Amino acid sequence: MSPLQTALEKIDANSDAAVDRLFELLRIESISTDPAFKESCTKAGQWLVDELNTIGFDASLRPTPGHPMVVAHHPGPEGATAPHVLFYGHYDVQPVDPLELWDTPPFEPTVKEVEGAKRIYARGSSDDKGQLMTFVEACRGWIEATGSLPCRVTILFEGEEESGSPSLEPFLAAAAEELRADIALVCDTNMWDAQTPAITTALRGMASDEVTIHAASRDLHSGYYGGAAQNPIHVLSRILADLHDDTGAVTLDGFYDGVEDVPDDIRQSWDKLGFSAKDFLGEVGLSMPSGEANRTVLEQTWARPTAEVNGVTGGYTGEGFKTVIAAQASAKVSFRLVGTQDPDRVAAAFRKHVEERLPEDCRASFIPHGRNPATQLDYNMPQLKQAAQALTDEWETDAAIIAGGGSIPIVGNFKRQLGMDSLLIGYALSSDAIHSPNEKYEMKSFQKGARSWARVLSALAEGSVSD
Amino acid sequence: MSPLQTALEKIDANSDAAVDRLFELLRIESISTDPAFKESCTKAGQWLVDELNTIGFDASLRPTPGHPMVVAHHPGPEGATAPHVLFYGHYDVQPVDPLELWDTPPFEPTVKEVEGAKRIYARGSSDDKGQLMTFVEACRGWIEATGSLPCRVTILFEGEEESGSPSLEPFLAAAAEELRADIALVCDTNMWDAQTPAITTALRGMASDEVTIHAASRDLHSGYYGGAAQNPIHVLSRILADLHDDTGAVTLDGFYDGVEDVPDDIRQSWDKLGFSAKDFLGEVGLSMPSGEANRTVLEQTWARPTAEVNGVTGGYTGEGFKTVIAAQASAKVSFRLVGTQDPDRVAAAFRKHVEERLPEDCRASFIPHGRNPATQLDYNMPQLKQAAQALTDEWETDAAIIAGGGSIPIVGNFKRQLGMDSLLIGYALSSDAIHSPNEKYEMKSFQKGARSWARVLSALAEGSVSD
Repeated sequence: MSPLQTALEKIDANSDAAVDRLFELLRIESISTDPAFKESCTKAGQWLVDELNTIGFDASLRPTPGHPMVVAHHPGPEGATAPHVLFYGHYDVQPVDPLELWDTPPFEPTVKEVEGAKRIYARGSSDDKGQLMTFVEACRGWIEATGSLPCRVTILFEGEEESGSPSLEPFLAAAAEELRADIALVCDTNMWDAQTPAITTALRGMASDEVTIHAASRDLHSGYYGGAAQNPIHVLSRILADLHDDTGAVTLDGFYDGVEDVPDDIRQSWDKLGFSAKDFLGEVGLSMPSGEANRTVLEQTWARPTAEVNGVTGGYTGEGFKTVIAAQASAKVSFRLVGTQDPDRVAAAFRKHVEERLPEDCRASFIPHGRNPATQLDYNMPQLKQAAQALTDEWETDAAIIAGGGSIPIVGNFKRQLGMDSLLIGYALSSDAIHSPNEKYEMKSFQKGARSWARVLSALAEGSVSD
Repeated sequence: MSPLQTALEKIDANSDAAVDRLFELLRIESISTDPAFKESCTKAGQWLVDELNTIGFDASLRPTPGHPMVVAHHPGPEGATAPHVLFYGHYDVQPVDPLELWDTPPFEPTVKEVEGAKRIYARGSSDDKGQLMTFVEACRGWIEATGSLPCRVTILFEGEEESGSPSLEPFLAAAAEELRADIALVCDTNMWDAQTPAITTALRGMASDEVTIHAASRDLHSGYYGGAAQNPIHVLSRILADLHDDTGAVTLDGFYDGVEDVPDDIRQSWDKLGFSAKDFLGEVGLSMPSGEANRTVLEQTWARPTAEVNGVTGGYTGEGFKTVIAAQASAKVSFRLVGTQDPDRVAAAFRKHVEERLPEDCRASFIPHGRNPATQLDYNMPQLKQAAQALTDEWETDAAIIAGGGSIPIVGNFKRQLGMDSLLIGYALSSDAIHSPNEKYEMKSFQKGARSWARVLSALAEGSVSD
């Protein structure tokens, strides 16, 4: 029997005990955003440190100005050829309110069988305690079965992911040498569907700005001034209306620099995913994709950049009516970025777009809100192919190579601060109700997730040797 | 000596006592919007009833669901040839806060001399107790000097003008026969400047609507949906941007139906008023008129219709940033109307403008907020010329025939409910700080205002005879 097979058998044998261990962690009320749960957060971190030390890692709790980080090391096999991977997850969870909508207590994990499948209900069962424990159980299986791990493994568990990760950047900067690895494995994403594992290879970046158009020095009465005074809402409306042309393309100068079409083989694999634009839009009351013409919805949301006005306000917005000409009006505008679009250049092009449309007596002010480039793995990266094959082997169906429309900040931090690419692999489902009442994780996700990681570690190690 | 001359001499002789009487009225704290001052409002109305009965009117207090109306009648001269005028003013006042910004107590009238001119400081000194008492003192002078008035006079004093006149329309409907006259005299407006009396002959009307653009059934995450989902802020921005063309003209179908150019002689008289667009705009931080091209600011604000967005809101408008695609976005839009523009047709054209710009998956809803036609006197109306001559005689400079950019609802009520035109004549100055701390009325306005009304009544009576 191969080492991997013995590890997989050990994982299966440990299965009931693994659920018990997960339940212990789920019972700890580690809500990071609420200061009342500060002790619980530390307790969850310490529980993980103890667990990892038991398995054979060298684990410790690292203080931050907020909740502590968990860092653990395992040297992997003897010799220097094995790759070094950094695994990331987070042990903190979202608040639980509205509590009355939970069918079972959020911190008393409960297994229910729904349509023949067992589910674990608890806050954090999916996001992210259940997910991160798949990796811990994979490591336990490997070590118990073979005495070691196929790769050198460093683990980083964060306790502030649900409250904006304020300590992450300084911590990575201070611990860069200790944490830098050949590749990061991040377990905080979904499968494509309940049968199909997925690796997320691209995440859109963002440049966002708040723009305020200023005109008169005070609000004016539209009876006295209307017809003669500049109305900043009119000016802003034209600026926003001009962000897109009639085909839905963004009009900023040079906006599409760095945007490349998705390779044909990847787009063809997307076409085979069975994605239904009708269902995706229909679920939120829409029937037609409205963005760039001649693009599929998956392209529009995964592989194309956008300009969105996320908020607009000016003048009187209360009940009833006030005949005012506002002194100012403002909008929050964000640009989702792909490929190698430069967030600073996009933000500068937006400011130019605004300035060029300012009439006499108007000026614009800006508040920058975010500048994150997109992340895009090389589709030919060997580790991507190795991990995809490992997932395909476990789930007995082709792993989906997908993208995400939003951003996962940690991926940018790893790339920017540690020079590492990340493989985003997770076993959550969109039905898991993360951040909501009755959050759940499929028992199948938990058990096959652990087996999947065991295979991924093996595949990365073998790939490294054969390269 | 002519009857008018004896009346004017009597007014001058009564001058000190007239100030004392005005002070009595100013001391009554008739703040209509605050229920705590309900008794005071009735007291002010009763004070006027008593005063008018003393002079020789048949005056009484008329209850309404809110504060009472004062109605008074004087038959005028014997015989049926004298015209019947209805005089309107209001005895209620604005609240006084912020009290700490008053230099003298708001209900303890105080005379101060500033740059050689006496001023009466008190809440209501200008708006509208000082103004309405100019007419009462003119009547007193006429009756004391000649035993009667040159016209048949009905007086209507309202006690709810500063709180939206909720009882006015039903009261006018119920008392239409009693109140209908040949013409209304409304004393609630300004002089052109401290030297130049003015008659306001046109007031813009209004059609106002709140429009909401609805797209998805809930707010969406712009990471997941951005690029594919309809953004109602984008749709609204295009709708609002399209309200004006590049020349500043309003684009609604048929919008300018009923709009006529100001007669040359009136426009020439406006050119002679010495109005400074630079000062008017400069005072609020602007330097250039921004509306319709090739129109003066007085035309733009007095004689041209407008489209103004008075408020806009959609998506996230708080501190910071939220990458949301809003389910809806809305704007409050008003159209100032002139001439015979039909508010209902303008509102319908706006709705058509919106509907024509709705893409797939969007719908619009509307809340109507106001539908008032403009009021526009016939510039050749004999009473206008008679009153203008009377003012010119008193102030020894040509009376300005001006317009107003806003609306004065009572003028519409008189026209619509009683079929009467109104002459808007007042002696307030823009420096009077009405609705603000340290409201004042010039002593000259009070004294020459009374003399002006004496002359206007005489002129209307004589004009009627000679016609």
